[in-house]
Amino acid sequence: MGKLSVVGLGPGNTEGMTAQARQTLEEAELLCGYGVYIDLIHPLYPDKKVYITPMRGEIERCRYALEQAASGVKVALVCSGDAGVYGMASPVLELAGEYPEVEVDIIPGVTAALSGAALLGAPLGHDFCVISLSDLLTPGEVIEKRLRLAAQADFVICLYNPASHHRPDALKKACEVLLRVKAPETVCGLARQIGREGERVRILTLAQLREADCDMFTTAFIGSTQTRDQGGRLVTPRGYRG
Amino acid sequence: MGKLSVVGLGPGNTEGMTAQARQTLEEAELLCGYGVYIDLIHPLYPDKKVYITPMRGEIERCRYALEQAASGVKVALVCSGDAGVYGMASPVLELAGEYPEVEVDIIPGVTAALSGAALLGAPLGHDFCVISLSDLLTPGEVIEKRLRLAAQADFVICLYNPASHHRPDALKKACEVLLRVKAPETVCGLARQIGREGERVRILTLAQLREADCDMFTTAFIGSTQTRDQGGRLVTPRGYRG
Repeated sequence: MGKLSVVGLGPGNTEGMTAQARQTLEEAELLCGYGVYIDLIHPLYPDKKVYITPMRGEIERCRYALEQAASGVKVALVCSGDAGVYGMASPVLELAGEYPEVEVDIIPGVTAALSGAALLGAPLGHDFCVISLSDLLTPGEVIEKRLRLAAQADFVICLYNPASHHRPDALKKACEVLLRVKAPETVCGLARQIGREGERVRILTLAQLREADCDMFTTAFIGSTQTRDQGGRLVTPRGYRG
Repeated sequence: MGKLSVVGLGPGNTEGMTAQARQTLEEAELLCGYGVYIDLIHPLYPDKKVYITPMRGEIERCRYALEQAASGVKVALVCSGDAGVYGMASPVLELAGEYPEVEVDIIPGVTAALSGAALLGAPLGHDFCVISLSDLLTPGEVIEKRLRLAAQADFVICLYNPASHHRPDALKKACEVLLRVKAPETVCGLARQIGREGERVRILTLAQLREADCDMFTTAFIGSTQTRDQGGRLVTPRGYRG
């Protein structure tokens, strides 16, 4: 029986990996993933075979990993952050039915919502949601509706993919939707290049966030009505006191 | 300068800990936390001092850890899952302003939304939210409003604290709120005792979830309209194809 493990590596450094992720890579015979993730882990296992996948062609990548596993190779397909949160676990499991001889394991990891939050303080101390602003696979009106309802629900909101080359103003547009419900003084945060060279965080208001520069390596946090800037740390209390 | 690290241990086993969490415990002189978490980590560091905190009295626990750190001791305050998601990072940072000589570090970990999702498959493949059903610190009407809006937003919904001794029917009530918006056939999942003895998962419909037994060691997942049972795994596709 073949085996394919989809492994979340956590933020972009080996310190963020779990022991379970390390053990899974150790046991794998073939490491698959984008170049930047293979660059991170291959030095740990220089003798292992690697397969660097192109940025697009996700389905082909999953099929390649499943086919290798079906041929009896122990395969680890690596993702940054968590394996499941906008990760490869979902497309792999969608295809796995065609490869009944392959056992698929999902190894979770620290996603950017958690690692970015830790750098900023404790913005996720109460109920929160995670929304991707990428409109590649999701209609813009679905994204906008979720933003509006998330603001009405007073969730802390964590935004993935706040910008890309073809959507430089995605974050600005999202902030405009949120500002129809939320106060411009709402406390927000940005975390960039988490766990990598150039890591930095910034606390700012929602009005400032609308004008902020960001890129595809940024995760944005929009506070609930309870979130505060507590001496330079973003904090959402665990309870409501009044 | 004193140092207090709030450390997320991940699910209930050492395999789920990150290298950064291990390193932080290694460097700490005093380990603080509930008995069950101290029982998990003390065998790794049998020579370290420990302080087992009572289940209630959270503020006193944070103060104790901050005071020890202020006296020059390197302290690690441990939480299960992530340090920030309903964790101790938030109350610690709320009090930290009174201890300006203490440096507070937050070490993230794999929260139950991620570890439970990995056991079930890939339910968090698209936008999701996390809601605690505990009404100890949150008014019931806030919880109900968030459930209703989360259902309208078609988030995958992850529920923490779905039951306790004084709220045995919290999950049932939450399902009734969700069923006003969502179809009874909505695919859901339960993950119990993640990473611990007795770990198990179950896939079921929202109508079945309403009648399901659960306890305080359970995390519940309610699918979006896109979530499917794919050969016994819970999968939310990353995109909308039609």
